[in-house]
Amino acid sequence: MTVDPIQQLILELARLPGIGERSAARLAYFILKQGHGGGPPLARDLAAALVRVADEVGLCSRCQNFTAGDLCGVCADQRRDMALLCVVQGVADVRAIEASGAFRGCYHVLHGALAPLDGIGPAELHLDSVVRRVGQGVREVILATNPDVEGDATALYLAKLLRPTAVRITRLASGVPMGGELEFLDQATVGRALSERRDV
Amino acid sequence: MTVDPIQQLILELARLPGIGERSAARLAYFILKQGHGGGPPLARDLAAALVRVADEVGLCSRCQNFTAGDLCGVCADQRRDMALLCVVQGVADVRAIEASGAFRGCYHVLHGALAPLDGIGPAELHLDSVVRRVGQGVREVILATNPDVEGDATALYLAKLLRPTAVRITRLASGVPMGGELEFLDQATVGRALSERRDV
Repeated sequence: MTVDPIQQLILELARLPGIGERSAARLAYFILKQGHGGGPPLARDLAAALVRVADEVGLCSRCQNFTAGDLCGVCADQRRDMALLCVVQGVADVRAIEASGAFRGCYHVLHGALAPLDGIGPAELHLDSVVRRVGQGVREVILATNPDVEGDATALYLAKLLRPTAVRITRLASGVPMGGELEFLDQATVGRALSERRDV
Repeated sequence: MTVDPIQQLILELARLPGIGERSAARLAYFILKQGHGGGPPLARDLAAALVRVADEVGLCSRCQNFTAGDLCGVCADQRRDMALLCVVQGVADVRAIEASGAFRGCYHVLHGALAPLDGIGPAELHLDSVVRRVGQGVREVILATNPDVEGDATALYLAKLLRPTAVRITRLASGVPMGGELEFLDQATVGRALSERRDV
């Protein structure tokens, strides 16, 4: 016996992060209603978009960002500074940095961070490919991994690997977020903001 | 020029209720990662489930619930009491009542409630089809529309329509939710619980 199509859609939607069975049911009914209320066929549009990413999207051959072509938009853009390399944990980080508009260099996406307990070591992250890229005329490497245990460990490991290349190695500044209030900040961030205070 | 497939997926996901552009991007990256991390191909599974509901799911010819067959599971079940009819606004309400396990009758799904300002009148809800069903041997009609302005108006209108049939007409009890705390309850519910208090 095959599973009921509505129940199957709910099960598939519940595989998405942050979506439990109840939310999945709500989404499924919304999708069903769109089709029957004369609105645009959300089910088919979304299905087509999913098939398109499954068919067309792979990894950029240079930076490992997701892309539909051989090179991602950043790597293919001649106006970007190829000598300035920003190493990030994930593709969402690329999106966040691009949205800031403050960076004109290129990226390298690790798709993770060192986590020995989860079996993710230097080999799984292909950290040697970063060293290889740096050997091809990079002036500065910005280690933009997250400021947590895994991200710090990854940055430290990469810095050690890159030291022989004599490239400039930097890390994103840590501290009080813009518009943030000291009062509500966690102690680790306040501590970091203090220890990395700068002259005015 | 065609839209980038990742951007298109984000746009389609953002059409879902309660999912903004940021959440949509997070979901899209999760879906992309599933495909590239060797996990089960969520994109294709979800796409297939969406196409299945678009292809197979229609309205139950008797109660208008969503179903893959001609009759929904409840209407097709010979053990359900066909003489007990529960009228609800949406398919999610059927799910909620079924989950309670407290109902062994059948449903009628209106797919909405009276909202004259939005152009939804008795004709749009096919309220006459409820009267027709009641004429075919129904003993009691439970008006389980929501206890808000539109739901109450719909129940009132239906009750009026059904009066000539001399069928028993009931409404779901309103009051303090089980496990709820009076202290945090809205005034309308407390008022209703008071006015509909019962002897013990």
